[in-house]
Amino acid sequence: MQSYHPTSEEFAWTFGGVPAVRKVSPGSVLELWTEDAFGGKVRTPRDLVSKVIEFPFVNPQTGPFWVDGAEPGDTLALHFVRIEPSREWAASTTIPLFGSLTSTARTATLQDPLPEIVWIYAVDQGSRTVTFQAKSGDYSVALPLDPMLGTVGVAPGALEVRSSLVPDSHGGNLDTPEMRSGVTCYLGVNVAGALFSIGDGHCRQGEGETCGVAIEAAMDVVVVVDLIKSRTTAWPRLESNEFIMVAGSSRPLEDAFRVSQADLVRWVSEEYGLTIMDAYQLVTQVCETPVANVVDPNYTIVSKVRKCYLPARSVYGGMHDRLREVGDAYADQNPEHCFGTRRNG
Amino acid sequence: MQSYHPTSEEFAWTFGGVPAVRKVSPGSVLELWTEDAFGGKVRTPRDLVSKVIEFPFVNPQTGPFWVDGAEPGDTLALHFVRIEPSREWAASTTIPLFGSLTSTARTATLQDPLPEIVWIYAVDQGSRTVTFQAKSGDYSVALPLDPMLGTVGVAPGALEVRSSLVPDSHGGNLDTPEMRSGVTCYLGVNVAGALFSIGDGHCRQGEGETCGVAIEAAMDVVVVVDLIKSRTTAWPRLESNEFIMVAGSSRPLEDAFRVSQADLVRWVSEEYGLTIMDAYQLVTQVCETPVANVVDPNYTIVSKVRKCYLPARSVYGGMHDRLREVGDAYADQNPEHCFGTRRNG
Amino acid sequence: MQSYHPTSEEFAWTFGGVPAVRKVSPGSVLELWTEDAFGGKVRTPRDLVSKVIEFPFVNPQTGPFWVDGAEPGDTLALHFVRIEPSREWAASTTIPLFGSLTSTARTATLQDPLPEIVWIYAVDQGSRTVTFQAKSGDYSVALPLDPMLGTVGVAPGALEVRSSLVPDSHGGNLDTPEMRSGVTCYLGVNVAGALFSIGDGHCRQGEGETCGVAIEAAMDVVVVVDLIKSRTTAWPRLESNEFIMVAGSSRPLEDAFRVSQADLVRWVSEEYGLTIMDAYQLVTQVCETPVANVVDPNYTIVSKVRKCYLPARSVYGGMHDRLREVGDAYADQNPEHCFGTRRNG
Amino acid sequence: MQSYHPTSEEFAWTFGGVPAVRKVSPGSVLELWTEDAFGGKVRTPRDLVSKVIEFPFVNPQTGPFWVDGAEPGDTLALHFVRIEPSREWAASTTIPLFGSLTSTARTATLQDPLPEIVWIYAVDQGSRTVTFQAKSGDYSVALPLDPMLGTVGVAPGALEVRSSLVPDSHGGNLDTPEMRSGVTCYLGVNVAGALFSIGDGHCRQGEGETCGVAIEAAMDVVVVVDLIKSRTTAWPRLESNEFIMVAGSSRPLEDAFRVSQADLVRWVSEEYGLTIMDAYQLVTQVCETPVANVVDPNYTIVSKVRKCYLPARSVYGGMHDRLREVGDAYADQNPEHCFGTRRNG
Repeated sequence: MQSYHPTSEEFAWTFGGVPAVRKVSPGSVLELWTEDAFGGKVRTPRDLVSKVIEFPFVNPQTGPFWVDGAEPGDTLALHFVRIEPSREWAASTTIPLFGSLTSTARTATLQDPLPEIVWIYAVDQGSRTVTFQAKSGDYSVALPLDPMLGTVGVAPGALEVRSSLVPDSHGGNLDTPEMRSGVTCYLGVNVAGALFSIGDGHCRQGEGETCGVAIEAAMDVVVVVDLIKSRTTAWPRLESNEFIMVAGSSRPLEDAFRVSQADLVRWVSEEYGLTIMDAYQLVTQVCETPVANVVDPNYTIVSKVRKCYLPARSVYGGMHDRLREVGDAYADQNPEHCFGTRRNG
Repeated sequence: MQSYHPTSEEFAWTFGGVPAVRKVSPGSVLELWTEDAFGGKVRTPRDLVSKVIEFPFVNPQTGPFWVDGAEPGDTLALHFVRIEPSREWAASTTIPLFGSLTSTARTATLQDPLPEIVWIYAVDQGSRTVTFQAKSGDYSVALPLDPMLGTVGVAPGALEVRSSLVPDSHGGNLDTPEMRSGVTCYLGVNVAGALFSIGDGHCRQGEGETCGVAIEAAMDVVVVVDLIKSRTTAWPRLESNEFIMVAGSSRPLEDAFRVSQADLVRWVSEEYGLTIMDAYQLVTQVCETPVANVVDPNYTIVSKVRKCYLPARSVYGGMHDRLREVGDAYADQNPEHCFGTRRNG
Repeated sequence: MQSYHPTSEEFAWTFGGVPAVRKVSPGSVLELWTEDAFGGKVRTPRDLVSKVIEFPFVNPQTGPFWVDGAEPGDTLALHFVRIEPSREWAASTTIPLFGSLTSTARTATLQDPLPEIVWIYAVDQGSRTVTFQAKSGDYSVALPLDPMLGTVGVAPGALEVRSSLVPDSHGGNLDTPEMRSGVTCYLGVNVAGALFSIGDGHCRQGEGETCGVAIEAAMDVVVVVDLIKSRTTAWPRLESNEFIMVAGSSRPLEDAFRVSQADLVRWVSEEYGLTIMDAYQLVTQVCETPVANVVDPNYTIVSKVRKCYLPARSVYGGMHDRLREVGDAYADQNPEHCFGTRRNG
Repeated sequence: MQSYHPTSEEFAWTFGGVPAVRKVSPGSVLELWTEDAFGGKVRTPRDLVSKVIEFPFVNPQTGPFWVDGAEPGDTLALHFVRIEPSREWAASTTIPLFGSLTSTARTATLQDPLPEIVWIYAVDQGSRTVTFQAKSGDYSVALPLDPMLGTVGVAPGALEVRSSLVPDSHGGNLDTPEMRSGVTCYLGVNVAGALFSIGDGHCRQGEGETCGVAIEAAMDVVVVVDLIKSRTTAWPRLESNEFIMVAGSSRPLEDAFRVSQADLVRWVSEEYGLTIMDAYQLVTQVCETPVANVVDPNYTIVSKVRKCYLPARSVYGGMHDRLREVGDAYADQNPEHCFGTRRNG
């Protein structure tokens, strides 16, 4: 078991461009901690992002980790055993000219920005809830805790370094609620060592992350790392007990849809032995397609198919099932921990 | 009870521009039949759409119906009690230069189109399944029947007449699997009589209708019609026992997202008494956002929120609950019918 | 010579759905008058559109005209001999939630709209200028008069009726400054008689019509009408002495670009005898691609190529040159008229 | 005078992430050479990009140059005195799944790619032409030489490193024909030293760079470098004798339009003293808006206004006029050189 809890000096703010903080071997189980997207600086309604955050120091990542033996052309597998809030509060906010229902620096208009407001949520591990409290009026509601990581990625290719705010083919800031415990994430390796990082925990998030900010929280994370040699993965793929999924990121949003659906069709075709046209037809009738984010530098859509509709074969050589067993063993050894959604698939 | 089973001469091919086939009173229960999107002409793998369909005679609608007392500024409520396939087979196909994973007349490229292929599905009411059979190889799979109507709409405003292939603020070809039995659809009335039509039944459909064609089937439909006077509805809204939903249609796809989310935020604000900013925050954390179609002249996204996360009040004055009771009474009187998903919400 | 000056009761507000006001024969020269987009109701800074216009009665069209012998599958040719402002003033304005630098009903945000302001311009036929006067401060500038028609179209196909605000394959509200005198516009005929209308004169317009409103003016128009039998035209094409052009309209804006470029490549290929790939290469190096509008229900881009870069052959059988001669004859017979840009090409 | 002719080992393939090759002082005149986008490897019709180019080693840049005293918050000014082809041939090509009239990795479809074909152009400095020769048939045409640089940029902000194929707020691969000799380009400085690079010469290019590849050529470049302290520039701005311009880059294409128009409105407002609303109105009526590229990772549109329509003041403190004088002095001292379009404005 390796544990790593970064100090604020050790955060990474980009994918690529920073040296590894640790070396890990395929098969390792890592106990990690991730700070929230605001570096823990938004703690009260007075902590406006425009005051407490100095851009670009936002969305700190834990990592990067060098994976022994990882080379371009391989696929990294990250199985999330546990993603749990590490504090009893979490924060959300509006940010001027950021979000999907406001003009932005790119969807540029001449209108005034929306007001900047902070909401602090109470996190209750016992009841598995996180509580919304309206700023005006007295409405409050306890929402189910559904912890996830907004940002999971590797160093990008093409010699690039990308901000931790960006989702793309290297993963990064996908902001999909599908990245929860119990899920295996497959990422194509672009550089030696893969150099993966994780961060941006959310206690829960609606599909689209409408105002641009989820219920942001520091997280305790347990992840199993493994490597599939000599197999490329073009776009981030996820696997749960029930679903295979692809996360496509681009603009406009229909291109994110096209990316995720086309890769899902090819995946079903290549790995399950259907022709492209048969796979296109089957996916058309059975896919689920939740929006992930419409606020980041690329927008993200996840396309997913229930395994029960596909020929009975596992993908990536059964990697998910093997990593799940490692996760189960970890859970058995740590009965005092909460493992959230992971057993539900 | 009014029943209406149109002949092929009675089909409507547009929303607006055609006279009413029947007059109905608010509160009526209608037993209707809808032909499939191909006018029933695609019955075997040799019935290519490019041969058997003469454009624009595609996607025939049953209607329009004149609703007594409906005027611009009112809202029409359609509660679907029953949507069930009326034949033992259904059809899907690819259509040259139509669909989301091909270039089209608008996403124009110089590439060759994909091949045109027909899949015929077996519908089994007993097992509640519809069976996919691969064209190449022998893979087949029985998929759960989840019947829905692709097209539900009223005559548009602005003096326009729109093809039945178009989804927009008047409803129309939304192609969302959420339009299933048990759901109430609210549509703003643009012209005297509202002039609503329905059609385009699907045995089931993935989210996005990727290849452009779902599992198309003729349907037996039972719908309760009602009217909310002097209340406008800008975009199609849906209500089930569990969810309130908005269907936004536009291009690019992010504008469909913006439309549906902004209207959902305003709905939550106006009807439940939250400020716009509190509603924006709450919707951000709890909405589900399935893609509906990325193939029609406008793309459609549905944004939905579980009622249990909202202050305990009904919307549109409790219309859904009242129409559900009418539907339950109908179901009690017709025990020999299958009512599919309606009781599940 | 036929002259027609509609009364306000005779305006058309749609393409399709209205009976012809006159019948004309191919080869006719028509003297027409078009009201401005506001029906002449915005005359002073106090005439806010939100007060004086009752939607959908905006952008009145002169027409439609029935063209003898026109049938689906033909191409209508409209050669503009003269487009000249008929009043000594013209108007522009901002309109709440309309324009490219504001959120709209589709690019929906939760922000407040921009202020609604009217600018009245002085039109000086003698100096060929139209004068901008700032609302705040004393800056004014005389801009060159470059009169054009924002809206030129035929009845659409697919049984549709479209608002005069919409640009699409039937033409309509293209809002391109290329629609000036001296230009021939080719439109595919969708219904018997073609049923073309014109309107929406602009004294001049920047490329994109950024705020949504050009310098709107009533116009005196002279147009020669002709017909090309048994030749289809998929998207509006324009021809001047120097250029061939295609106007593509869709959303997102890249689809308008794709439509206009792909049709231009096909036009160059089919009519000049280059392969598609050679035409693709040549167009890549020589096209000019001005944005037309980014404010209407579809956005429009014009792609154009100088004829001097193409093999020396005329298009549409030399129609433009023949109509230009008719126009020259008209100009010779009416020396007291101003013919603006038509001789410049 | 400083001259620099990089070897192939000295090329930069990114903006950011590479050390400076030279230090220069504000006011310097630099004589540079840029290799073509293919590293000079596409010389015959058999040199297919898919064979001779190893991605990501495409679009080599000359630089980066460290500018003494440049700091974040300053603006770099680059005035192009001379951009002239340095060889007697130039190359263009199609590239599989790259270009605007084909599906791509992001506008993903399941169709086959277009054929890969190379066109070699003859460059004639004497006649100032570059000659297109069809691959099929015998059509050829001499096109006017209009040399430009496709790629001009500085190191990006937010700790990022971007491929030389990307256009964005740091400049980069804008691919606009407006980047010709006689033009001053203003770029906001993001890192100490600014670290600007240039490359990607085109003998000429249509607006949109439709097939993805212009007439690619190595170039001899003379550029004057200067610095405006303590003034930020959000998006690349250009100034010629006649125009001020903004290059906006984003997806979808309407966002590139919005970026360039909104910045142009703000520029006119701030520097010429009009209110935002007056500037919005004036720009609406006078702007020209040529598409630059619809093929790169971001799409680019240029919005431009003739200075003669604006209050008589220079921008950026008269920087363009001063640098133009430096350029004129260089031209006087080098009468044997061709300076192309620079004197025309």
